[in-house]
Amino acid sequence: MPKAPVMPVDPAGECAFAGTRCTRRRRVAILLFDEVEVLDFAGPFEVFAVARTALGDAAFDVMTVALEPGEVATRNGLRVVPGATTGSLEATDILVIPGGPGTRREMTNPQMLEFVGTASCSAELTLSVCTGALLLGAAGLLAGRSATTHWAAMGELEALDSGATLLPGSRVVDNGSLVVCAGVSAGIDGALHVVERLLGRPQAEATALAMEYDWTGFDRDGRPLVTAAS
Amino acid sequence: MPKAPVMPVDPAGECAFAGTRCTRRRRVAILLFDEVEVLDFAGPFEVFAVARTALGDAAFDVMTVALEPGEVATRNGLRVVPGATTGSLEATDILVIPGGPGTRREMTNPQMLEFVGTASCSAELTLSVCTGALLLGAAGLLAGRSATTHWAAMGELEALDSGATLLPGSRVVDNGSLVVCAGVSAGIDGALHVVERLLGRPQAEATALAMEYDWTGFDRDGRPLVTAAS
Repeated sequence: MPKAPVMPVDPAGECAFAGTRCTRRRRVAILLFDEVEVLDFAGPFEVFAVARTALGDAAFDVMTVALEPGEVATRNGLRVVPGATTGSLEATDILVIPGGPGTRREMTNPQMLEFVGTASCSAELTLSVCTGALLLGAAGLLAGRSATTHWAAMGELEALDSGATLLPGSRVVDNGSLVVCAGVSAGIDGALHVVERLLGRPQAEATALAMEYDWTGFDRDGRPLVTAAS
Repeated sequence: MPKAPVMPVDPAGECAFAGTRCTRRRRVAILLFDEVEVLDFAGPFEVFAVARTALGDAAFDVMTVALEPGEVATRNGLRVVPGATTGSLEATDILVIPGGPGTRREMTNPQMLEFVGTASCSAELTLSVCTGALLLGAAGLLAGRSATTHWAAMGELEALDSGATLLPGSRVVDNGSLVVCAGVSAGIDGALHVVERLLGRPQAEATALAMEYDWTGFDRDGRPLVTAAS
């Protein structure tokens, strides 16, 4: 199984285009595969598609990508047609790796792991949701990073021996170029965090407002949703 | 434009299959159309697809439906293939009407309004999300009911003169057989409320836990997410 090289982490996660200086429209590619969990990809899709720059322009071009052309059947049978295949995908700025039962098949698929590894390494930022972390781990991208996953899959991620430090209580773990989310709905919070980091707090708040999503960056007990990798 | 008859409301929303006595797997049909908002339909899809009965069985069969066969292009370009057409749809127990920019076109489409009216009247329960309320109003289903919609579309709903009492501060309005949600992410809370009402609190909590969604039925200021229709 090919192992992708692990990019050096920039712990500060600084971006030359941050804040209102950003005029570049970033490309977001969301990976699809059979038995992907619907909200794992649809939550970040909504956040990135709705986000606007301070000038009011769409901040991201959001597309979906799969290994092969043709319909993908998600978990529970939503039929989605990917917008591109991995072979034809141009360089993407943000790569979203959702989870779902299909990750257990894809984490032993060399073609998938090669795509995840190479696309992640050339992207500015990779966001995993739920058991998408298993794909990152299997592709060798979690070595030396901090990670989380769906609470019910924490044992599987640990057993993968990926070299990650697991932070089971964290909803979103920020490693700079790699943002790792807990299960399903946590992808919404992870994507909003990426919007905040790249575009600034007012843009993240405007995105949440457009979605009528009650987001402050903290949970209802006042704990931050995001943990910086140690 | 054909006006569908308005069913009498059962304000208590009681269901003979409520709680752990429920053994029937309900059919959920989620309406799709071009320029539907992704999270408007994907949020309830996830909730209903994940929900389990007290016995651990899937509580709902979730499917998507559109007027015509073939791909639907959502707002921002997700390509989804509906599982059925409205003409071939068997009776559904729960009808989900999402919103999105496409509602402005569909609210003057007689074929769509006839489907929404007749399918809603034969369903046990209809759930609208966001500007899906505009379709309900245009189909004549909001007369004498209480309603909400996306905050930015409240004026449009008011101008529709649908006979609804608008409750702009409400996230979810429960009229018994008709549950009306505010914008986008509020559909997740509305669907969880329906799960709670039909299957009981423990099942709704288990659904939220499976989605890692921080749900208590109250917002972070302790206000209930659901308003009973007056």
